[in-house]
Amino acid sequence: MAGPRGKAISMASSSESSLSPPAVPMELHAVNRDKLLNYIRQQLSVCSRPLHGFVFLQGGEERTRYCTDHVELFRQESYFAHLFGVREPGFYGAIDIASGKSILFAPRLPADYAIWLGEIKSLHYLQKRYMVDMVYHTDEIVQVLHDQYNGSGNPLLFLLHGLNTDSNNFSKPAEFEGIEKFEIDLTILHPTLTECRVIKSDLELVLIQFANDISSEAHIQVMRKIGVGMKEYQLESMFLHHIYMYGGCRHCSYTCICATGENSSVLHYGHAAAPNDRTFEDGDMALLDMGAEYHFYGSDITCSFPVNGKFTSDQSLIYNAVLEAHNAVISAMKPEVSWVDMHRLAEKIILGSLKEGCILVGNVDDMMIERLGAVFMPHGLGHFLGIDTHDPGGYLKGMEKLKEPGLRSLRTTRKLLEGMVITVEPGCYFIDALLVPAMKNENTSKFFNHEVIGRFKKFGGVRIESDVLVTANGSKNMTNVPRETWEIEAVMAGEPWPLKKSYCPEMAKEAS
Amino acid sequence: MAGPRGKAISMASSSESSLSPPAVPMELHAVNRDKLLNYIRQQLSVCSRPLHGFVFLQGGEERTRYCTDHVELFRQESYFAHLFGVREPGFYGAIDIASGKSILFAPRLPADYAIWLGEIKSLHYLQKRYMVDMVYHTDEIVQVLHDQYNGSGNPLLFLLHGLNTDSNNFSKPAEFEGIEKFEIDLTILHPTLTECRVIKSDLELVLIQFANDISSEAHIQVMRKIGVGMKEYQLESMFLHHIYMYGGCRHCSYTCICATGENSSVLHYGHAAAPNDRTFEDGDMALLDMGAEYHFYGSDITCSFPVNGKFTSDQSLIYNAVLEAHNAVISAMKPEVSWVDMHRLAEKIILGSLKEGCILVGNVDDMMIERLGAVFMPHGLGHFLGIDTHDPGGYLKGMEKLKEPGLRSLRTTRKLLEGMVITVEPGCYFIDALLVPAMKNENTSKFFNHEVIGRFKKFGGVRIESDVLVTANGSKNMTNVPRETWEIEAVMAGEPWPLKKSYCPEMAKEAS
Repeated sequence: MAGPRGKAISMASSSESSLSPPAVPMELHAVNRDKLLNYIRQQLSVCSRPLHGFVFLQGGEERTRYCTDHVELFRQESYFAHLFGVREPGFYGAIDIASGKSILFAPRLPADYAIWLGEIKSLHYLQKRYMVDMVYHTDEIVQVLHDQYNGSGNPLLFLLHGLNTDSNNFSKPAEFEGIEKFEIDLTILHPTLTECRVIKSDLELVLIQFANDISSEAHIQVMRKIGVGMKEYQLESMFLHHIYMYGGCRHCSYTCICATGENSSVLHYGHAAAPNDRTFEDGDMALLDMGAEYHFYGSDITCSFPVNGKFTSDQSLIYNAVLEAHNAVISAMKPEVSWVDMHRLAEKIILGSLKEGCILVGNVDDMMIERLGAVFMPHGLGHFLGIDTHDPGGYLKGMEKLKEPGLRSLRTTRKLLEGMVITVEPGCYFIDALLVPAMKNENTSKFFNHEVIGRFKKFGGVRIESDVLVTANGSKNMTNVPRETWEIEAVMAGEPWPLKKSYCPEMAKEAS
Repeated sequence: MAGPRGKAISMASSSESSLSPPAVPMELHAVNRDKLLNYIRQQLSVCSRPLHGFVFLQGGEERTRYCTDHVELFRQESYFAHLFGVREPGFYGAIDIASGKSILFAPRLPADYAIWLGEIKSLHYLQKRYMVDMVYHTDEIVQVLHDQYNGSGNPLLFLLHGLNTDSNNFSKPAEFEGIEKFEIDLTILHPTLTECRVIKSDLELVLIQFANDISSEAHIQVMRKIGVGMKEYQLESMFLHHIYMYGGCRHCSYTCICATGENSSVLHYGHAAAPNDRTFEDGDMALLDMGAEYHFYGSDITCSFPVNGKFTSDQSLIYNAVLEAHNAVISAMKPEVSWVDMHRLAEKIILGSLKEGCILVGNVDDMMIERLGAVFMPHGLGHFLGIDTHDPGGYLKGMEKLKEPGLRSLRTTRKLLEGMVITVEPGCYFIDALLVPAMKNENTSKFFNHEVIGRFKKFGGVRIESDVLVTANGSKNMTNVPRETWEIEAVMAGEPWPLKKSYCPEMAKEAS
């Protein structure tokens, strides 16, 4: 039958996207488990402890909203997702340190689950699907682990207990009926598993790359479709639709930040109390910080551009200050480089550009001493990215956060290692709450060109954020969006991305 | 400048939608408060209790995911939303029963909130925005309520404590530092406020109508764009995009159910363990249960149709059985009608149609006695709809749930009252877990035409769901989607909705 069906099929594979969701290899999680097993065995050996016991984690539970039966869409707890890749709620998982075998414990579902919620999957199905050695029900945990254990006394469980340095919350060790029949170790698992998550495997990188690819494409679609007079949330809607429709991404890494005009100086705009609801106007800058998540692995990308598709000279000035910092950091990144140095490098370049643009005056090194960089970029340069947007492991045990403005906001102060994925997201914002005191302060007032800076009072801010992999000799930018001002203008005017080799910005300028 | 901007603006106001988000009147919540105040004063008067004390509610809190700093998008607690309409987390609210004055307590935000999360709104701003009489900070609750109180002794707080009969969870009474300096009443507020929510005001109906309008339009867009070979989640993505892009609806009333083929017999399909991820095929039925929420007020709409746009005779048979039940119930609805009777009416019509279609044999009244309806429709006929999808108040104090299959799933057994909004959602499903035992059971086996029913083994199910307002003399269907099979086929073939008066299904049939 000709007609609407043909049209619909062509839409699904239309020019809107060149991507489709990749297969998810469950080997990924088997590799993650093997890596952890090796690390833990090494650590136990170093302490001359027996290679007995179980790594034991509790997966996430579905939650209802307040007292109602409204079920929030479940998203697996990240450590559990890392080791087991299970998408359903209510599971536990174990790894036998002696044998290396992996065991999943699935909830025993009531018979009427099949009527209301779907087929009750067999244990055999779950074992094949999740590529584990054994699957039992959660009410068999005590029995199974006692049967499997070949040490003496009660079996030892290594449970997850440790600080998340971004939230200051502690992870919750597994709980279950009968846990008193086990010995417990709360010290080894968290730092070890966290460190496993810091260095990404090739299989993990494939997923992070896909999340980047679909998000990059979605950002570009938004650039093309944005129009003066729209609402900020319409940009969010277009992004969400693109990543789900063409990338199968049901979750985002974080709530979309779609900030225009002055809102772009609010670093975490977009939440329920500031819900992307402004109507933007000709002349506004947009700062769009949006990233898709694919099978738990995320992306985190920010594009900044003028909503009308043409940078003014002031917009170019601020934008290029940030872009230069972004590019310089990525060029300098390689193993053993200190992330604090990268943060300072970004600050210094931005301050230098603001001086060139006559917004600041004086010696940039003096500005650095006074921490003037933190007035324009109060947040840290970037953070680890993986199953969490702010992936854990930013501070090794014993490392303390720095005290100075800006630096104290760093989510890591570590040296880079091959296999880390970290966001590079310098920004330059005009935030009254920081600028007004700095312009009055006797140590920093002298750096400001008070007349010129007035022009930027309602400017908002610019952030440019890419997800960058540390390689053996340098780094690789996993994000692929137009970054140069002329690239952005060309894509917003309808040019394909990547631009054709023959594309010449000068010609476009003459034509306009 | 001609070019992409013009294109973009036209997209925002394109033929995709004829709707735009209406203004949200905060009077709505003032009206809700006044209604509660009258009810509570009446109740206190009846018991000869003094008209003193405060209705006192705690709003919802923002939550992070497990141990991380990933913030889930905040959605206000529903009772609090009903009375105060506040979209931000961390508030408390009070109504002074003596004076009728309303008081909001806002969290005292740290200075750096302005840098990270946005402007700190003044108390004056909040007072105007939310149309309350006074706004203070949450750390002033004890002092303010003691100052306002004109009774003797410690002020009396009416806190929310009661059972949600859908979740079997209890609402959490407000907690705050210093609560021991108050007298507490846990009995009056919950039933009273719940009953206030059962009968919708005109202002509430405007929002529920808009949620219905934008959702109806989105369902129609999905019908038009669906194509064999798509994934179920692509239908979800299209729906979500439509309601957000054109309706400003950031939240759904519930997780979208996009079930095709056999999945359409899973009543609550679409959750994390059954995540709308099937690729559907020519000949499948789709059952799409999706509803937008606008300023807390929801919609809940199900459309069922063949993914290829043409009903087969078997599909028509089951579909029309359900449609006839749907229409008969809406026609019969009016104040004082028992919802249990409506459920039975729907069952009886469906069973009668299955008999006509030679799937069942025997006397329909006998089938009713054996509760055969519940084999094909195990869920209740519908539920109250409002700020919650399953809006509370389905069982008045003392009412018990019925025991029989099907009837025990009813979310209300009340008589209808003017101003109730209730979903009418009959369904007919072929669920092995129910059919196989019923076909073996000695009391019910005789009703089945065992040969014919085999044809429906992989059919899945059909549900047709509309949101219906009980009016003074009857009812009003707030949902506006094509329901007749020929209407659905016409819209899927590209006809506008509503169909032109000149549209004739017979002509279309000839042309195809």
